[in-house]
Amino acid sequence: MEKSSDVLTKEQIIAATEETIRRYGMAKTSVTDVAKALDVSHGSIYRHFKSKTELFEAATEQWLEEKIVAPLADVCRDSSLHGVGHVQAYIQTLVRLKRHYAREDEALFAMYAKVSDESAELISKHIGRIVGHLMDIMLRGGLESDHPERSARAVFYATARFHHPAHAYEWKSAAIDAEFSDVWALIEQGLKTND
Amino acid sequence: MEKSSDVLTKEQIIAATEETIRRYGMAKTSVTDVAKALDVSHGSIYRHFKSKTELFEAATEQWLEEKIVAPLADVCRDSSLHGVGHVQAYIQTLVRLKRHYAREDEALFAMYAKVSDESAELISKHIGRIVGHLMDIMLRGGLESDHPERSARAVFYATARFHHPAHAYEWKSAAIDAEFSDVWALIEQGLKTND
Repeated sequence: MEKSSDVLTKEQIIAATEETIRRYGMAKTSVTDVAKALDVSHGSIYRHFKSKTELFEAATEQWLEEKIVAPLADVCRDSSLHGVGHVQAYIQTLVRLKRHYAREDEALFAMYAKVSDESAELISKHIGRIVGHLMDIMLRGGLESDHPERSARAVFYATARFHHPAHAYEWKSAAIDAEFSDVWALIEQGLKTND
Repeated sequence: MEKSSDVLTKEQIIAATEETIRRYGMAKTSVTDVAKALDVSHGSIYRHFKSKTELFEAATEQWLEEKIVAPLADVCRDSSLHGVGHVQAYIQTLVRLKRHYAREDEALFAMYAKVSDESAELISKHIGRIVGHLMDIMLRGGLESDHPERSARAVFYATARFHHPAHAYEWKSAAIDAEFSDVWALIEQGLKTND
C-alpha cells in the first residue's frame, strides 16, 4: 500500500480505522492510532477528516451501507416476494443482520451504537434508506395507505426493540424470536387490514 | 428525624438517596454522600443494603412503583374505559409518564435508565407488572387471544420506542406524537382483528 499522504485516500483511512477499532476497541482508538496503522502523521488524517467524530461517522456510514443497507436492498429487489410476506422478509433480514453483527463484529457494532446516540443526522439518513425500501415494497405489494411514508416508518418503529442497537442486550434472551413473532403477528394484522 | 442507626429505616435511606442523586447526579453520588445526608456512618447504610448497586436498585424499584406503576394501576382499574380504547389509554399514559419524568426528574430517570441496563431481574419484574395490567384490560375488554400474556407483551414491545429509557433522546423530536399515532394505528388494527 502507498503510504505517502498525497495518495492517501478516505477509503484507506476508513479501512485502517475499522481495523484499529477491531483491535483496540472503540474507547481506546485515537486518530494517532489510525495514523500509526497507516504509517502517516495524524495531520494526514486531519486533511481528510476534520475531527475524530467526523472520522468515526464516516466509518459508521460505510459500515451501515455495506453490512446492513446493501443486503436489505437485495431483499427489497427480490421479485419472488410480495405484499405482507415481502415486508416480513425485509424486517426479519434487518433483525437478523443486526443481531449477527452485534455478536460477530462487536467492536464495530459498538461504534455504530455510539454514533447512533450522538449523530442524529447520520442515523436519520440511514433510517430514511430503510423507510424508502419499505415504502417501495408496500406500494409494489398493493399495501395501500393514505400516507405510505408514515406507514412504512410505523413498521420500522414498531419493531425497534428488535433492531435498534440500544436493545442489543435483550437480543441474547432465549425468548427473543418468540417475542418478535408475537409483535409481527400484531403488525401483520394491521398491514393486512389496509390490504 | 431520628438519626441514630438503630432506628434508621430502609425508607429513610432511599429518600436520602433520591435527594442526593437529585442534588449531585447519578455518577457523583456515593454511599458516603447518602450517609452524610443522613448524618450516619456509611456502615449504617450497609446494614440495610449490601452494596451501592443494591441501594440504587431499591431506589429505582420504589421510584418505578410510585411514579409509573401506581398511576398505571389507576388507568387499569378505570371502569369508564373498555376494550381497545382502554389498552390505548393505558399505553398512552405509560408513554406520557416516561416522557414527563425524563424531562422533569432527569437525575432519577438517569438512575432508572442505568439500572434498566444492568439489572435484568428488576426490570423483568417491572415489565411483568405492566404486562399483568395489559392482560387484565384485554381480557375484561373481550380482546380474546390464544395466548393473552404473549399478546399483552407484544403490545408493550411494539411500543418500546416510546417508553423504553434508551429511546429518551428521541422523545424530544417534534414528530414523536405523530409517530406514536402511526404505530398505534398499526397495532390497533391488529388488536381489533382479534376482537
